[in-house]
Amino acid sequence: MTDPAAVLEALRLELGDAVVTDPARLEAARGDKSGHRSDAPPLAIVDARSIEDVQATMRIATRTRTPVVTRGAGTGLAGAALATTGEIVLSTLAMDRVIEIDEDDLLAVVQPGILNGRFNDLLGERGLWFAPDPASRAISTVGGNIATGAGGLLCAKYGVTRDAVLGLTVVLSDGRVIRTGHRSVKGVTGLDLTALMVGSEGLLGIVVEAIVRIRRRIEGTVATIASYFPDAASAARAASAVSAAGVQPAVMELMDARSLAAVDALLGTTMGAAGAAHLVVQTDGPAAASEASSALAIIESFGGTAELTTDPAEGERLLAVRRAMHPAMERLGTTLIEDVSVPRSALPAMFAAIADVERRFGVTIPTVAHAGDGNLHPNFIFDGDVVPDHIWEAADALFTAALALGGTLTGEHGIGILKRRWLQDELGADQVDLQRGIKAVFDPLGILNPGKVFPPAE
Amino acid sequence: MTDPAAVLEALRLELGDAVVTDPARLEAARGDKSGHRSDAPPLAIVDARSIEDVQATMRIATRTRTPVVTRGAGTGLAGAALATTGEIVLSTLAMDRVIEIDEDDLLAVVQPGILNGRFNDLLGERGLWFAPDPASRAISTVGGNIATGAGGLLCAKYGVTRDAVLGLTVVLSDGRVIRTGHRSVKGVTGLDLTALMVGSEGLLGIVVEAIVRIRRRIEGTVATIASYFPDAASAARAASAVSAAGVQPAVMELMDARSLAAVDALLGTTMGAAGAAHLVVQTDGPAAASEASSALAIIESFGGTAELTTDPAEGERLLAVRRAMHPAMERLGTTLIEDVSVPRSALPAMFAAIADVERRFGVTIPTVAHAGDGNLHPNFIFDGDVVPDHIWEAADALFTAALALGGTLTGEHGIGILKRRWLQDELGADQVDLQRGIKAVFDPLGILNPGKVFPPAE
Ligand SMILES: Cc1cc2nc3c(=O)[nH]c(=O)nc-3n(C[C@H](O)[C@H](O)[C@H](O)COP(=O)(O)OP(=O)(O)OC[C@H]3O[C@@H](n4cnc5c(N)ncnc54)[C@H](O)[C@@H]3O)c2cc1C
Ligand SMILES: Cc1cc2nc3c(=O)[nH]c(=O)nc-3n(C[C@H](O)[C@H](O)[C@H](O)COP(=O)(O)OP(=O)(O)OC[C@H]3O[C@@H](n4cnc5c(N)ncnc54)[C@H](O)[C@@H]3O)c2cc1C
Repeated sequence: MTDPAAVLEALRLELGDAVVTDPARLEAARGDKSGHRSDAPPLAIVDARSIEDVQATMRIATRTRTPVVTRGAGTGLAGAALATTGEIVLSTLAMDRVIEIDEDDLLAVVQPGILNGRFNDLLGERGLWFAPDPASRAISTVGGNIATGAGGLLCAKYGVTRDAVLGLTVVLSDGRVIRTGHRSVKGVTGLDLTALMVGSEGLLGIVVEAIVRIRRRIEGTVATIASYFPDAASAARAASAVSAAGVQPAVMELMDARSLAAVDALLGTTMGAAGAAHLVVQTDGPAAASEASSALAIIESFGGTAELTTDPAEGERLLAVRRAMHPAMERLGTTLIEDVSVPRSALPAMFAAIADVERRFGVTIPTVAHAGDGNLHPNFIFDGDVVPDHIWEAADALFTAALALGGTLTGEHGIGILKRRWLQDELGADQVDLQRGIKAVFDPLGILNPGKVFPPAE
Repeated sequence: MTDPAAVLEALRLELGDAVVTDPARLEAARGDKSGHRSDAPPLAIVDARSIEDVQATMRIATRTRTPVVTRGAGTGLAGAALATTGEIVLSTLAMDRVIEIDEDDLLAVVQPGILNGRFNDLLGERGLWFAPDPASRAISTVGGNIATGAGGLLCAKYGVTRDAVLGLTVVLSDGRVIRTGHRSVKGVTGLDLTALMVGSEGLLGIVVEAIVRIRRRIEGTVATIASYFPDAASAARAASAVSAAGVQPAVMELMDARSLAAVDALLGTTMGAAGAAHLVVQTDGPAAASEASSALAIIESFGGTAELTTDPAEGERLLAVRRAMHPAMERLGTTLIEDVSVPRSALPAMFAAIADVERRFGVTIPTVAHAGDGNLHPNFIFDGDVVPDHIWEAADALFTAALALGGTLTGEHGIGILKRRWLQDELGADQVDLQRGIKAVFDPLGILNPGKVFPPAE
C-alpha cells in the first residue's frame, strides 16, 4: 500500500480536474440509500469522463494497491457503494451519454452514468423504452442497475436487468479493457461473462459501456385493478391465484396494513380504512382487457373488494401509492429494507412467516411485495445510523424462512455489506469458495470494492 | 496420469455395471453430429444413474488425473462431446427423470439426460411446455441444451435456453456438489453462476439437475405465412422489415435457393420452382391474426408471393420443410453447419457476404436463417471425415464478415473443437485469459473436457 498522499498526487497528475476531494462529496460517498455509512470518508473521488479516465485510475490503483469503489448514483440499498479511508471512489456520473439508439435492432449503446429515467425519457420520444424499472428509476444509473441486477415493478412480465443486457465494455482492475457479448440477439461464444458481470456489485470490473435491449412501446389499453382484502395473506393467495390462472400482469403489487397506514400518513389518503391489504394489478398489451377481467373475477372470488379502470391517469394514480412507500417509510425512522424473494406460490407462506417474526421479536415489519414474481420488501424501522442487534436477529429469522421456501436473501438489491454474513447460508461454503476464486481471477490484488459481498477473511 | 488399466479398475470397483467398454459404444463416443471424430476411442463410458455416480466418477478422475468428457445425446454440432484415448465419457442419458412439475410456479426440476422432446411430451399432457426448441429437440437432452445454451426456432419470441434456467445442481471436477440459483423468479445473491454454467460446454462441471422455467400453452390461433422471393437478399430485407415494424413472430425462418433444392430432392416437393428463397413466418398468441396480416402486407410489399393459413396441420406442414433441412444436407455429403449470428438488420448484408464467399472460394453454401433473431446456418458440404482446408478458409471469411457486422461466431451451437481457433478473434486475448482463469478455478487439474473451446496451449 502506497502512502495516500502519493496516490492522490499520482491521480492528480494523470486526471487533473477529475480528481475531487471536496469534503462534502467525500462525506456523501460514505453512504448510500440504505442509511448505512462507512466509518470515515474516502481518499478522493474521480469523476471519470471517459473510458481512458477509468483506465488511468485503475492503472494507478493497481500500481499503488489502492482500493477502488465504483459509484453510480449511490441509491443502492445494500451498502455496496460505501467507501472508506484510503479508498478511491470512481464515479461514473459524468459518463452519461446515449451513444446510439438502433430502432431496427431494438438496442441502444449507453454510458454507465446515465440515469435510467433520463434514458427512458430519450427513448420515449421515439416510442421506445428500456424495461428494467426499479422504483428508483428517476435517480439511479443504468450502470448501477446493471451492477446490481436491478429489478422493478414490471419485471415479472418484461424481465429483470439481466434480460436486457446484450454486451458490456468493462475496464479490468489493472486498466485493461474487455468487450463481452455482441449486438446480435443470440451468441454462445465462450463463457457468458456478460451475465457474470450483471449483478457483480463492482467486484469484477467497471462497466464503462453497455449494449442493452430496448422495446417498442406497448400499444393499446392499460387496465388497472385496485383491490382491498381483510389481510395480507388473503391478498397474497389472490395474487398467487392470478398468476396460477395464466394471467400475466405487467404489474402486481401488494401492500400490507402497516404499509397502507404509513402511505396514508404521507399522502393524506384513507386506504387503511378501505381494508387491511391492498393489491394493485395492471395488465397491458393485446390481451389487457380479457386478462383484467379474469384477474378481477379471481380477486373477488378470494374476498377482495375491487375496482377496475382503463383510464391511464387513474391507473398512474393507483400506482403512485405504491411508489410512495419508500418516502413513507423514511418518515418513520431509519429503514432496513429487506428484499427476500420466494416462489410465487409461497407468497402466503412468506407473509405468515413475517407475521411470526413480528410476534417472536416484538417488531413491526411493514411489507410490500412484487406479488407477480414473489419478491417481498419487509421494512424494519429503527432510530439512528446502525441497525440494532434485535433487528438483525429478526432479519436473520426472515432470511431463514425465505431460504426454506426455496427462495433467496435478495431478489434485486444485492448483498453489499449488509447481507454478506448470510451469503454462505444461501450459497454453501463450496460455492462461496468458487465465487471468491472467480473474483481473484478478475482482481488478483483484491482492490475492487473490497469487503463487499464476501465477508472479510477472519 | 495413472495407468489406464488402474483407472478402469477403480471405476469398476466403485461403479460396477455402470462402467461400459463395449467397443461399439466407445466408437460412437468418438463423434457427434458434426460429422467430426476424435482420433481414437475413449477408455470407458460411465452410464451415471445418480448424482452419487457422477461424484464417484469425478473423485476417481481427480485422484488419477483422468480427463472426463460429459456426454448427453451426442447431437452437438461443434465437436464439444468428442472423446479420445484415455478419457472417461460421463454419459447422463440414464439420468432422465422429471423430478417435479410445479404448475403454479411454472417450473420443473429435471435430470440432465431427459430428451427435450420427451420432456415436452410430458409437459404437453398438462397444457405446459419448455420453450427452448432446438431443431434437434426430439433427440437432444435438456442437459446438453443447457451446456450448449441451445437456441431454436421459437427463441426470438420465447427466449433461448439461458432464459429458461433458474437453478442448477453441478458436480465439480473433484466430486463436490454445488447448487446455484433458486426456485424464485428473481435473485441476485452473489455472482450468477447459473448463467455462467449455461453454454459452458462441459468445461466447468457436470449439470446433474436443473430447475427450469416452463410455460403455459399459448392459446388461440396460430397463423402461418409461407412466401417466396426472387432471391435470399430480398427475403432477408422483408424479414428485417417485419421485425422492424414491431411484429413479433414466434417463428421466422428463411431458406435460400440451394437449401430449397436440397429439401425438394429429399421430400419430392417443388418449392424451388416457386421461387429462389422461402420465408416462413408464424405468429401466435392474442395478437396472432393482426400480426400475421401486418407481416403479410410487408412481405408482399417487398416482392414476396405469399399464402397465409390458420390451419394448424397446414402450418405444421409448412414448418416441416424447414425441419427437413438437416437430413437434406446429410444426403449431399459431410456437412459443416456454420452458425453465425448478426443483428437482425444485418441479415441482408450477411447474405451478401455469403454470396461473396461463394464466389471467392468457389464453394456453394446452402443457407437457412432464424431470421427473427439474425442467426444463420450456412452449410458447407464436402466428402470424407475431415473438413478440407479450402472449406475452413471459406468459413474463416464468413466468421470475419459476421464479426464485422457486430455478430458472433456461434449463435447457438457453441465452440467445441471446431471453432476454437477463432475464439480469440471474437473475444480478444485479454478476455480469453480471463475465461481460462475461470476455467482453472472450477477445474484446477484441467480434467474437464480438455482441448474444447480453448485452443490447447502451443
Ligand atoms: C427509493 C428507492 C427505490 C428503489 N427501488 C428499487 C427497485 O425497485 N429495484 C431495485 O432493484 N433496486 C431498487 N433500489 C435500489 C437502487 O436504486 C438500485 O440498486 C440501483 O440499481 C442502484 O443504482 P445506482 O446508480 O444508485 O448504483 P450505486 O448505488 O452507486 O452502486 C450500486 C452498486 O453497483 C456498483 N456499480 C455502480 N455502477 C457501476 C459500474 N458502472 N460498474 C461496476 N459497478 C458499478 C457499485 O460499486 C455498487 O456495488 C431502490 C432505491 C431507492 C432509494
Ligand atoms: C438435426 C440437428 C439439428 C440441430 N438443431 C439445433 C438448433 O436448432 N439449435 C441448437 O442450439 N442446436 C441444434 N443442434 C445441435 C445440438 O442438438 C445441441 O447443441 C444440443 O443442445 C446438444 O445436446 P446433446 O444432449 O446432444 O449434447 P451433447 O452433444 O452430448 O453435448 C454437447 C456439449 O454439452 C456438454 N454436456 C452435455 N450434457 C452435459 C451435462 N449434463 N453437464 C455438463 N455438460 C454437458 C458436452 O460435454 C458437450 O460439450 C442440432 C443438431 C442436430 C443434429
